[in-house]
Amino acid sequence: MALADESAGHRFDGRARVVIEDVTPRVDAGEFPVKRVVGDLVTVEADVFADGHDAVTAVVLHEHEDAAEWSEAAMRPLVNDRWTAEFTVEEIGTHLFTIEAWIDPFTTWQRDLRKRVSAGQDVSVALQVGAELIRDAAEHASGEHRDRLRAFRDRLPSGGSTLSIAEDAELTRLMFRHAPRRFATRLDRELKITVDRPKAGFSAWYEMFPRSAANDERHGTLRDVEARLPYVASMGFDVLYLPPIHPIGNAFRKGRNNATDAAAEDVGSPWGIGSSEGGHTAIHPRLGTMEDFRSLRDAAQRRGIELAMDIAFQTSPDHPYVREHPEWFRHRPDGSIQYAENPPKKYQDIYPFDFESDAWRSLWEELKHVFEFWANEGVRIFRVDNPHTKPFPFWQWVIGELKREYADAIFLAEAFTRPKVMQRLAKIGFTQSYTYFAWRDTKYELIKYFSELTRSELREYFRPNLWPNTPDILPASLQYGGRPAFMARLVLAATLSGNYGIYGPPFEHGWSAPREPGSEEYLNSEKYEVHHHDIDRPDSLHDFIARVNKVRKETPSIAHAGTLEFHNVDNDQLLCYSRVSPDHSDVLLVVVNLDYWHTQSGWVEFPIERLELPSNRPYQMHDLLSDARYLWHGNRNYVELDPSSSPAHLFRLRRRARSERDFEYFL
Amino acid sequence: MALADESAGHRFDGRARVVIEDVTPRVDAGEFPVKRVVGDLVTVEADVFADGHDAVTAVVLHEHEDAAEWSEAAMRPLVNDRWTAEFTVEEIGTHLFTIEAWIDPFTTWQRDLRKRVSAGQDVSVALQVGAELIRDAAEHASGEHRDRLRAFRDRLPSGGSTLSIAEDAELTRLMFRHAPRRFATRLDRELKITVDRPKAGFSAWYEMFPRSAANDERHGTLRDVEARLPYVASMGFDVLYLPPIHPIGNAFRKGRNNATDAAAEDVGSPWGIGSSEGGHTAIHPRLGTMEDFRSLRDAAQRRGIELAMDIAFQTSPDHPYVREHPEWFRHRPDGSIQYAENPPKKYQDIYPFDFESDAWRSLWEELKHVFEFWANEGVRIFRVDNPHTKPFPFWQWVIGELKREYADAIFLAEAFTRPKVMQRLAKIGFTQSYTYFAWRDTKYELIKYFSELTRSELREYFRPNLWPNTPDILPASLQYGGRPAFMARLVLAATLSGNYGIYGPPFEHGWSAPREPGSEEYLNSEKYEVHHHDIDRPDSLHDFIARVNKVRKETPSIAHAGTLEFHNVDNDQLLCYSRVSPDHSDVLLVVVNLDYWHTQSGWVEFPIERLELPSNRPYQMHDLLSDARYLWHGNRNYVELDPSSSPAHLFRLRRRARSERDFEYFL
Repeated sequence: MALADESAGHRFDGRARVVIEDVTPRVDAGEFPVKRVVGDLVTVEADVFADGHDAVTAVVLHEHEDAAEWSEAAMRPLVNDRWTAEFTVEEIGTHLFTIEAWIDPFTTWQRDLRKRVSAGQDVSVALQVGAELIRDAAEHASGEHRDRLRAFRDRLPSGGSTLSIAEDAELTRLMFRHAPRRFATRLDRELKITVDRPKAGFSAWYEMFPRSAANDERHGTLRDVEARLPYVASMGFDVLYLPPIHPIGNAFRKGRNNATDAAAEDVGSPWGIGSSEGGHTAIHPRLGTMEDFRSLRDAAQRRGIELAMDIAFQTSPDHPYVREHPEWFRHRPDGSIQYAENPPKKYQDIYPFDFESDAWRSLWEELKHVFEFWANEGVRIFRVDNPHTKPFPFWQWVIGELKREYADAIFLAEAFTRPKVMQRLAKIGFTQSYTYFAWRDTKYELIKYFSELTRSELREYFRPNLWPNTPDILPASLQYGGRPAFMARLVLAATLSGNYGIYGPPFEHGWSAPREPGSEEYLNSEKYEVHHHDIDRPDSLHDFIARVNKVRKETPSIAHAGTLEFHNVDNDQLLCYSRVSPDHSDVLLVVVNLDYWHTQSGWVEFPIERLELPSNRPYQMHDLLSDARYLWHGNRNYVELDPSSSPAHLFRLRRRARSERDFEYFL
Repeated sequence: MALADESAGHRFDGRARVVIEDVTPRVDAGEFPVKRVVGDLVTVEADVFADGHDAVTAVVLHEHEDAAEWSEAAMRPLVNDRWTAEFTVEEIGTHLFTIEAWIDPFTTWQRDLRKRVSAGQDVSVALQVGAELIRDAAEHASGEHRDRLRAFRDRLPSGGSTLSIAEDAELTRLMFRHAPRRFATRLDRELKITVDRPKAGFSAWYEMFPRSAANDERHGTLRDVEARLPYVASMGFDVLYLPPIHPIGNAFRKGRNNATDAAAEDVGSPWGIGSSEGGHTAIHPRLGTMEDFRSLRDAAQRRGIELAMDIAFQTSPDHPYVREHPEWFRHRPDGSIQYAENPPKKYQDIYPFDFESDAWRSLWEELKHVFEFWANEGVRIFRVDNPHTKPFPFWQWVIGELKREYADAIFLAEAFTRPKVMQRLAKIGFTQSYTYFAWRDTKYELIKYFSELTRSELREYFRPNLWPNTPDILPASLQYGGRPAFMARLVLAATLSGNYGIYGPPFEHGWSAPREPGSEEYLNSEKYEVHHHDIDRPDSLHDFIARVNKVRKETPSIAHAGTLEFHNVDNDQLLCYSRVSPDHSDVLLVVVNLDYWHTQSGWVEFPIERLELPSNRPYQMHDLLSDARYLWHGNRNYVELDPSSSPAHLFRLRRRARSERDFEYFL
């Protein structure tokens, strides 16, 4: 390297002595954005240091990508050359941040002057050095600031209270502002933050099949769904997710229980999209019209419920695309179109798109258009079906494009596959992700999985959306655990993550029969037939669900991965964890009995000293499920859960009044 | 992003579906090279995966930076989408590697065909697909390979032993070689490996003051050092490191024991470099001439010893630079040159260079010239004094420049400062690093520190060089622990890292007196006065050191961080660890008693099953220090160490003959 080199667009200056390393938060060394929601505090940390003994000053520079200039947050040292600063993100969209740091001659001078004065040394030359630094800064200031700096400079060498002038707070502030930042090091990249609206981090989903929404023995319609909105709202859900509402193909249509031969009256799977009646932008005639859709959308909105659209990029053999765009499909040597298969299994009712097609660009554009069509109809939440079977570059592109136009869009990745694949989808732009929650049953499994999700880099970009059941997944716990299992799994889903959902009414009604033993498919699954649900069934979990969702809404810290902490219980069937607000004012302690058949008891270890609770006084735990109140003392307290009454406690900590004179209990 | 975009210099193709993530080994996400020595195996790992179910093929591409083209190593899958491959680095210099991966239609086809055949499906269309793939590859091959591929294609659809043809090893090989790698993903960066000569990873240093090398009451000379080479060689050292041999300044010269006022006869500190007799490229007249230096260098080489030069970039006020290049120093407001200080401490005998000078370029060039001067005199090992007080960009530049010219150069960073600073110096190019070893005394401290050095990313770039003592550091353990401490600390230094050194003869002679209580400075330090050493003292540790160095030479795995493993002992005073060669043929087990005053005993847990030792037969542990042999059984064995005889065992495992018929013990 020649020393006069130009590199990276600017002249190399060997005097930039400060090093900035290991910045957090970031994902894959900054290749992908971290995720936050509006109002979040972003805490930045980095190793910042230089050679020698000079003092270093560092700032975080941050801005919304549309902003005209950087805002600045001064960093402060922690230990071991680690520095930190924080700022709040107030606006949806992409925010950028970076770090700048430099050797600070003025703070170095202040620090050294203090030592020289303490040691009783002659500081006359040191004062001249300081005066030069202040003069230099004054030349970079103007107006009143310049005058003030000059005044400080003039007062400096006059002796007397040297240190009190040198360390004057106003002088320090003015010097930080105006002293030239010579040979500053700027981090070589700008790190990105995707800032979403709050619902990206805190949402309660309800999934239902529109065709099963009728109150009588009809094929349900979107109008029936509209009529069911009060029911959904009364349980406290704020996202209503509908499986595909498009026309369903006839070729190779699946019958009840996934039978290969459909009967004439069989309605087919909603994911077999497309017929002569239209494709991904059409509505199934038996469900209604676009007007019905808009009416549903508006009625939902009035109840604080947002519609989530299912985006399933595949077609039935009858889809208009097959005729109009054969180039988007793979053709077999015998001339037929390649149907979906996972050898030896064949899915002849489904054609996958061929993303290796020479016409991939027009395919991408068309698929983007599908999103745009529904976005123009007011949809901002998309539950994407099997994204892991379409190329990552496509998702990265299409989500990036759509978010430019619809910054408030939310994309949920329905990928149940290998961990690295699911993580990649979250990195490249999906807002929320399905998880392995349905298969994490034991205390060991739950602690391990949720520690990984909330304690590793995953917490920066992977937002779990937990589902105790889906139309594809009736997990073993719900097949065998009875009502306590449904209650426990609901509490877990609703409090282990800011985002969760259930598939109802089968959930409220405790559907537990699998298609066959060992299967996770529902018997007589709604995927292949119309059902009719009596939503007023007395055994419905409706009220319990409503209560849990109410607790969620009163516990904002559930939205934040960092507040999840597991606590020891001396019983492997009892899981305990807390959600604590940053100011410790709100504490939710969850205890769940994972044994759905027997009463279990144990001692919970809950470190109250961190909550500034006095160790010598009782405090009250208010179970929001049973409304019972318990007086607890110290760090170890007894719990006992009989699953036949309730498999969980949702304790809210009730503090007594903080006044020293208040000796009454707070019952 | 428009879909026809050009990006990163090549046309974006959305069909490149494979993802490559989390590649190891690398340092700071690839910003800095990893370090290896010639002959090392480099094991590369990465997450490699794609959407969907297609099979992926991945290769590591690697080359010496001067090579014309990449070599290729096929990767194989481990678990959880992690892949691996390895290659050997055979040449000094910078090597590069990267990864390429692609969807492999042929291996996908092979896999699926197997499943179709097992399921008894009609495979006629599948065979046509395979034939097309083979035809395609044949078109990309030539000569015999093309003919063979065509022959396979012709045999394929004829049925019969379909699978045996489809999975034929030759066909698989030919397809790997010739099938076009369509839509391949190449890792977006080439990762660097600095490959050094073996001594970078395995060296035993001996430091001595030339002026104390005389056998009589003279000021020693380089000729005296030459006369002492047989002594150094007999102990088994292969690097002889001399503190600065340049003229020493007179202004503010330090007297004995660092006294501020030197007496007329005081010789000064060798690090007070420069006088009217010359600077960093001159030899102190009392030490001899350049001819003497060359003679010493050649004599050392004949004994397998390499000279290490001390590079201390600072000057005495008398250095020619001060007169000739005042622009390289900082000037105070009173016109004087800024001496070194760490307020309130002043070091008026030392002028630091001003690396923020406008003339930094000429300063850098001159300092590089100092290295080049000694490199031209045949020196290839440089022990750099206090590199942490000079800018990182300077070191990165100067080491990079020098290694281009002298690829075999070795740079040892003498930085005892904060961890991040020491690590940065290693990242930017220093070959070896001083460590905190001198202050890691207890079992807890040693295990913690060496686990960090050998189990974290540090192992990829930070090569520890361990010193039980230096002229600046007489640690408390050596002040109070007596002869057992010297022996134990030597064994630890020599076997915990491939690189270590001692400062002698004070080490061999057990110097333990500090300048004052609480100080780590030697009383009557050789830094400020001439000493005379009787190297034939009967109490010298010479023979013990020679024995330890002999064991080192017979234990090549000591050079490799990855082979260091600590083992449980049920006694906090006993430290146990092993060094095992990759093929398990050589096993060194070290046990050290860290209590230098009392006999300690305990049970060592040594997992012999990993060494393929039969659990039902004894094996022999041969203590190479005492020459005693012990029969051990199983995983737990008793050890007892009396520090007054030996504070350590250096056990070499002696296996019995592997033959089943050999029933004799192996004593």
